[in-house]
Amino acid sequence: MLFKVEMTVNIPHELPADVIDEVKAREKAYSQELQQQGKWRHLWRVAGSYSNVSIFDVEDNAELQELISNLPLFPYMEITAVVALCRHPSSIRDSDA
Amino acid sequence: MLFKVEMTVNIPHELPADVIDEVKAREKAYSQELQQQGKWRHLWRVAGSYSNVSIFDVEDNAELQELISNLPLFPYMEITAVVALCRHPSSIRDSDA
Amino acid sequence: MLFKVEMTVNIPHELPADVIDEVKAREKAYSQELQQQGKWRHLWRVAGSYSNVSIFDVEDNAELQELISNLPLFPYMEITAVVALCRHPSSIRDSDA
Amino acid sequence: MLFKVEMTVNIPHELPADVIDEVKAREKAYSQELQQQGKWRHLWRVAGSYSNVSIFDVEDNAELQELISNLPLFPYMEITAVVALCRHPSSIRDSDA
Amino acid sequence: MLFKVEMTVNIPHELPADVIDEVKAREKAYSQELQQQGKWRHLWRVAGSYSNVSIFDVEDNAELQELISNLPLFPYMEITAVVALCRHPSSIRDSDA
Amino acid sequence: MLFKVEMTVNIPHELPADVIDEVKAREKAYSQELQQQGKWRHLWRVAGSYSNVSIFDVEDNAELQELISNLPLFPYMEITAVVALCRHPSSIRDSDA
Amino acid sequence: MLFKVEMTVNIPHELPADVIDEVKAREKAYSQELQQQGKWRHLWRVAGSYSNVSIFDVEDNAELQELISNLPLFPYMEITAVVALCRHPSSIRDSDA
Amino acid sequence: MLFKVEMTVNIPHELPADVIDEVKAREKAYSQELQQQGKWRHLWRVAGSYSNVSIFDVEDNAELQELISNLPLFPYMEITAVVALCRHPSSIRDSDA
Amino acid sequence: MLFKVEMTVNIPHELPADVIDEVKAREKAYSQELQQQGKWRHLWRVAGSYSNVSIFDVEDNAELQELISNLPLFPYMEITAVVALCRHPSSIRDSDA
Amino acid sequence: MLFKVEMTVNIPHELPADVIDEVKAREKAYSQELQQQGKWRHLWRVAGSYSNVSIFDVEDNAELQELISNLPLFPYMEITAVVALCRHPSSIRDSDA
Repeated sequence: MLFKVEMTVNIPHELPADVIDEVKAREKAYSQELQQQGKWRHLWRVAGSYSNVSIFDVEDNAELQELISNLPLFPYMEITAVVALCRHPSSIRDSDA
Repeated sequence: MLFKVEMTVNIPHELPADVIDEVKAREKAYSQELQQQGKWRHLWRVAGSYSNVSIFDVEDNAELQELISNLPLFPYMEITAVVALCRHPSSIRDSDA
Repeated sequence: MLFKVEMTVNIPHELPADVIDEVKAREKAYSQELQQQGKWRHLWRVAGSYSNVSIFDVEDNAELQELISNLPLFPYMEITAVVALCRHPSSIRDSDA
Repeated sequence: MLFKVEMTVNIPHELPADVIDEVKAREKAYSQELQQQGKWRHLWRVAGSYSNVSIFDVEDNAELQELISNLPLFPYMEITAVVALCRHPSSIRDSDA
Repeated sequence: MLFKVEMTVNIPHELPADVIDEVKAREKAYSQELQQQGKWRHLWRVAGSYSNVSIFDVEDNAELQELISNLPLFPYMEITAVVALCRHPSSIRDSDA
Repeated sequence: MLFKVEMTVNIPHELPADVIDEVKAREKAYSQELQQQGKWRHLWRVAGSYSNVSIFDVEDNAELQELISNLPLFPYMEITAVVALCRHPSSIRDSDA
Repeated sequence: MLFKVEMTVNIPHELPADVIDEVKAREKAYSQELQQQGKWRHLWRVAGSYSNVSIFDVEDNAELQELISNLPLFPYMEITAVVALCRHPSSIRDSDA
Repeated sequence: MLFKVEMTVNIPHELPADVIDEVKAREKAYSQELQQQGKWRHLWRVAGSYSNVSIFDVEDNAELQELISNLPLFPYMEITAVVALCRHPSSIRDSDA
Repeated sequence: MLFKVEMTVNIPHELPADVIDEVKAREKAYSQELQQQGKWRHLWRVAGSYSNVSIFDVEDNAELQELISNLPLFPYMEITAVVALCRHPSSIRDSDA
Repeated sequence: MLFKVEMTVNIPHELPADVIDEVKAREKAYSQELQQQGKWRHLWRVAGSYSNVSIFDVEDNAELQELISNLPLFPYMEITAVVALCRHPSSIRDSDA
């Protein structure tokens, strides 16, 4: 089941550089693991920003909450949209359900 | 090159039913043709609405304008978002550029 | 799986009274049928309005789209919120998953 | 009498971890006590967020103010909606009054 | 129990003058009856508008819904705010509960 | 002459407790003095918040500015609405002018 | 006593030309009469629009309501701002009270 | 050439009192100098706020930028509106061009 | 002197096709004449819309009002932004003043 | 391919002056280099602000992201708009594609 999720990262200026680098590394590893599993189906950068548009493929709402709330960068994130998607009647892709 | 486009359809109540059906049929054919060509890469329905989230893959901005403005339902559409996307540094998909 | 859905009804003034009554009757029957099935778990009126706050219990996003888009009053509705819900870690209700 | 209340928690980054844990523990106990009493009738997590949608059942507005303003996390909360609800004419539930 | 309610009247231009006058007369009578009963405690005009700020004193949310939804002008009204009020700890008025 | 004024208090977390208590005490005394004089005609708490809805009765705009800007909590307040009110043609209260 | 009022005119397309011309003529005469009296102290056009920014000098809120609500174009106007003004402590103009 | 400019001052709480007083004094002198020159034609306080509505009379956009960006309080200001004004066809004032 | 102006065209559905074509032709001629004169310096289409971003080069605000309000499509336009521009201190272009 | 990008700079008050000057110098050099290359085609100051309206000419979305995210002031910037532009059918400029 698909969800569009949009996230903007706002890392506080006063956070030490090494702390920032460490949490970013964990974030990358975490996201690539979920992409490998097919949970995080698409991850795009919004051009001209520190935001992303993502498509998650989860079993249900609870799994979506778990995946998002455990993002290492979650404390520094503004989740600007969580939108439930489903198959469009004109879509030619079965997989986009 | 990818763009996220979000559209909401508002067909006026007073439009005759046959006119509505005809323009919807043209819209479906138009969109499926573009999907076949890979231009309209993803077309999802927003659950609980008459809106969609789409990902277009175009050569440039001009082509995006051409594809969107020629949608048969364009006169009855509110284009609520046009967002330029690009590859996210953490994405594991080459194709998502 | 639960979704909060908020709806506001805007019936055009110029619609004949009998047409309005007929579609309202179908809407009531449709909603009470879904409530009987447990799909439409809660339906509250927002005091001082022609809006409602509803909690739907559905299998997935696709079923939510089907239930909402088939509301007889759907053409005259503004769906102002569709929010995916899940169990709160402090909730004492198993059933609120 | 029912109210929908929506809350988003924004705990300042610089707050010491033990202070955060302590206030969260008090919050959980406080909320579960009210749930036991039936005052806090529903508590759902909004998937992909640190927000909740709640339904309170109170005697009157004054009691709602008392319950909300005494939330241990209240100083770190943004109360994004307080909506008075009442029985919907199509509701099949007497208890949803 | 007090509620602040704010209303803006938008009467369609094409409505015949006599129809408008008739519904306005019913609205005035309806509102003055409720004011006499103490239900509609305050009714102020917002200077420079066709809006009002009102304070209702009702038993519960259900009564508020009944009073508002039965306003003769309700079909032509935009209810822009419904806010539950209660006694302020610094208020010197017992009656403002 | 009446004005509706709405205020939300945002006291910075890092302010020492004794400083907060002192300014709140001055605020209460200041507001009750104005209420005694009839300048601050109504002061209601918005249920579920740290906000109030107030009705001021002043000679003119200048006096309103003086009363509001001298609120002890003014530096920590967001004044979310200042609305000029006047007698509604349907009001049965002479005093609500 | 001064108020800033901002107005945008939206004349329905389907209104006959002669009706529009007639109401515009009455509007011009009405506004110039008030300007002569000093009630309508300033009337500026917002460049690139059919809106204006005005400064009214009135006895009280009631007079403001009377002057605005009797504008011939009032039924076709969106009053986007009504702001109570008073003398700025740094102003060198006595007349700007 | 006239511009409406609206400004809200947000001085950080933690700024030392003497620093605040000093910059306010410079601001007052700066603004009164421009008022003397006729550049800052009107300066009104918005009643119930720490905001102002101003009318500037400048040669061109560049001069407006220079005058605003050199306001001593500029670093602590939110410029909420900059609106180009011009003579209204119904205005009786030649000077309001 | 430069202004950024953004416009969205909303032509009513019920307008006869020939009327639409005629006004569009006048609009194109009008805009190309101003472009030739250098008044309308840039005219871009916003990709995926019926909107444009334009840069006007005018003597003053009054001329901007004249050029915009005389657009043949003006009655069907929403002018979403009018922003006064001036030379940026980092700009390498003298002509962009 | 053209993009309109709008940026507002919010430099934290507490940042040391020398740090601010250094990053501003790098920003100016960076932007003038891109202007020389034709990538940053227009850079205007919004009159009365610390914002700019810019037109970028890039190969694709990815290059836009690279140019914007590498702005020395990027950490202190709010990118308020990124809009894909293309040639307007009425434009007389070939170069504005």
